[in-house]
Amino acid sequence: MTTSVTATLAAFAGDGAALPEEVRHAGRRTVLNAVALAVGAARHPAAEAALAAARALGTPPQAGLLGRPERLGLTWAPLVTGIAVHVEDYDDTHLATVVHPGAPVVPAALAAAEWVGADGAAALDAVVVGVEVAARVGLGLGPGHFDRGWHLTGTAGHVGAAAAAGRLLGLDHAAMVSCLGLAATQAAGLQEALGTMTKPFHPGKAAADGVEAALLAAEGFTGPPAALEGRRGLLAVAAPKPDPDAVVAGLGTVWETCRNTFKPYACGIVSHPVIDGAVALRGRVPDPEAVTAVTVTVNPVVLDVMGIADPVDGLQSKFSVYHCFAVGLLDGVAGPAQYTDERARAPEVAALRAKVRVVGDPAVARDEAHVEVRTRDGATVAHHVEHATGSEQRPLSDAQLAHKARLVVGPVLGAATDAFVDLASRLDGLSGVDVLVAASQPPKEERRA
Amino acid sequence: MTTSVTATLAAFAGDGAALPEEVRHAGRRTVLNAVALAVGAARHPAAEAALAAARALGTPPQAGLLGRPERLGLTWAPLVTGIAVHVEDYDDTHLATVVHPGAPVVPAALAAAEWVGADGAAALDAVVVGVEVAARVGLGLGPGHFDRGWHLTGTAGHVGAAAAAGRLLGLDHAAMVSCLGLAATQAAGLQEALGTMTKPFHPGKAAADGVEAALLAAEGFTGPPAALEGRRGLLAVAAPKPDPDAVVAGLGTVWETCRNTFKPYACGIVSHPVIDGAVALRGRVPDPEAVTAVTVTVNPVVLDVMGIADPVDGLQSKFSVYHCFAVGLLDGVAGPAQYTDERARAPEVAALRAKVRVVGDPAVARDEAHVEVRTRDGATVAHHVEHATGSEQRPLSDAQLAHKARLVVGPVLGAATDAFVDLASRLDGLSGVDVLVAASQPPKEERRA
Repeated sequence: MTTSVTATLAAFAGDGAALPEEVRHAGRRTVLNAVALAVGAARHPAAEAALAAARALGTPPQAGLLGRPERLGLTWAPLVTGIAVHVEDYDDTHLATVVHPGAPVVPAALAAAEWVGADGAAALDAVVVGVEVAARVGLGLGPGHFDRGWHLTGTAGHVGAAAAAGRLLGLDHAAMVSCLGLAATQAAGLQEALGTMTKPFHPGKAAADGVEAALLAAEGFTGPPAALEGRRGLLAVAAPKPDPDAVVAGLGTVWETCRNTFKPYACGIVSHPVIDGAVALRGRVPDPEAVTAVTVTVNPVVLDVMGIADPVDGLQSKFSVYHCFAVGLLDGVAGPAQYTDERARAPEVAALRAKVRVVGDPAVARDEAHVEVRTRDGATVAHHVEHATGSEQRPLSDAQLAHKARLVVGPVLGAATDAFVDLASRLDGLSGVDVLVAASQPPKEERRA
Repeated sequence: MTTSVTATLAAFAGDGAALPEEVRHAGRRTVLNAVALAVGAARHPAAEAALAAARALGTPPQAGLLGRPERLGLTWAPLVTGIAVHVEDYDDTHLATVVHPGAPVVPAALAAAEWVGADGAAALDAVVVGVEVAARVGLGLGPGHFDRGWHLTGTAGHVGAAAAAGRLLGLDHAAMVSCLGLAATQAAGLQEALGTMTKPFHPGKAAADGVEAALLAAEGFTGPPAALEGRRGLLAVAAPKPDPDAVVAGLGTVWETCRNTFKPYACGIVSHPVIDGAVALRGRVPDPEAVTAVTVTVNPVVLDVMGIADPVDGLQSKFSVYHCFAVGLLDGVAGPAQYTDERARAPEVAALRAKVRVVGDPAVARDEAHVEVRTRDGATVAHHVEHATGSEQRPLSDAQLAHKARLVVGPVLGAATDAFVDLASRLDGLSGVDVLVAASQPPKEERRA
């Protein structure tokens, strides 16, 4: 089995058989979450900067953007959209691998679907296939790939995006193998980029490269047949302990797509149990100024990924478990409004952050946390979060996910929010992606400039 | 010093001080070799396939191609040109790192120079800076990066191409740091791609991504400040034993650009000593059909990289030390004509290949070989190649390099060959890249279709 991982994935990606309804429903949730975030961050500075580069190039108007009227070249639209989906660190997570599959896969599928005039049902199937491939490549890379410093949303994301785009372009089997190979050889993304615009660039570029790989393969460009499992393929080269069998074990019957989770909070997911804990303690700590010390005990990965003690801006605050605790206790929520430059610099937030001590303990699971707050009067209150909200054990319900989508989209679409969230919840019922793009445009009164 | 590798490289890349003439001359040689190869392979199937994808997209006519009339989008032209430079495995090599810097750097510099209307002198300086950066990033990644399975022309090539493009776009220091960071986080390229179109795709994409990184940085897109040397930067993530100091040691005084070498033979460089040996034995083996056994003793890397015993096509034959020996003995040369599908399948070549036994011996240097031929009459002739032609110890002279360029360009440009090679030898004397592009176009009678 290990000898034909890439070919097996390619056959799966090109298979036109109907997908189970449960899997399609998981795909719908991934689409809703991703496109809502794309609309919400449509004018984020990172998206604006990438768009300015596309404008400087004058790329032809081939694919639409979500939440803004410009149309860009077929590889530039998914670049900008992928950035927008990921930039608030609020997107979906396949927890077993820490792949965020929606950000690379959904923009690639939408652009490719628009390019070939596919209907919404075909676009949804492509999203499912791309998410499944990205998650499974992540499984094959194993935890050592993450530990080495790779950002899986960039690496595994490349292959997932290519699978989605290749399916929509109708590649035959040989071309699909080349398409996945072209994507695998471009798999990249350094965790060093955390806290800069380059982190969301990773899924954006994975989406763009995935579409480009499909275009090249469609024109006869050849890739290595064993790009994933070969002796010098992605798994052997980029992972210290790869597991090629995990990529294809149960493929088409066990669905990683159904394990995709959605964040209630707009920051790195490993901080979520801490925020749950802070929110839970709110009622028992009526005066945050009276807090003298906070002890947070978490899995060591939290300090590794979210260890910025004193973030200087909104981007950095997304990677600060200290900030996460502080806004959880002060605000009781942790949406995009809690990770702005203003909130990162607010004196009451900075004061509370400085009192937080974080202890890494390998015995604590990644979705678990112990939080303990001591106050001026000598009292101590504590809370244990067994599984964070949005974890596999406590997934967001469809209603919670739609609520999140409305919160994210609302500031951009205003009165048009509900209609958009409704359409975005049922991509497979739409005649095409253009319907979704049209519904994502802010009404005149909400539109700037 | 280790703490500011990326910033130090960025300052170097943006420095406008005059470069030493010796270094500029090394840059001229790199340009001549690269652009000659681009013309020679202008209609190679890999270049055609990439061009077809660009055509399908209808990218705007922003940058010219060498050896053919189409103009493509600013990132697509260097993609196609980078493929053409590298596809015959005949390009330059920085031997200490096995980086082929010309293929990613020259196309990026030419496209960026055309975009900003820079003169040839500025374009040449950008090439030098890009080659220097690519080679030095390769030194920092160390031999373990290659051994792990990365193709350095894709990985280190990304950063070199970005440095060249960023310089031509006139990025300020902060933007140059972001530009190099954007490139470093995209550094990729698997050795698994050897023998497919995806291998030359690596420098092509490095060139395209380098130009794109410069464009994005110019628009304010931010990258990680320590993308190379950071805890999760390229060196730590992609290399088992990185050497950050080597990236910047002697920068601006010791020039890796001057150590760039040029291949006399159109295949993987580690086979070159074997070809020298085969050519040397020709006179002593008048009847190749009489050969009964060949023993070739080489550094073990040769078997690792060039180990295809029975190549089925031209591309595979470039990675077959067995084929290299056979054509060396049969033809006495090893140019592009020796690595065609026809030559790979020729019965006399296949018959001789089958008699070759290759022994890997760590005591034999990479540019060294022992060859021994036994014939039907029981006689044995042997030859020892101490340093291969084109090695640092035996570099091609300017005249030899110009001769090679004419051989490569001749079939495409015919009577216009000498004029093109003359212009390509002195890029810094040209008013702009457009002069070179114009001179590279086949005269009417040579032009197909």
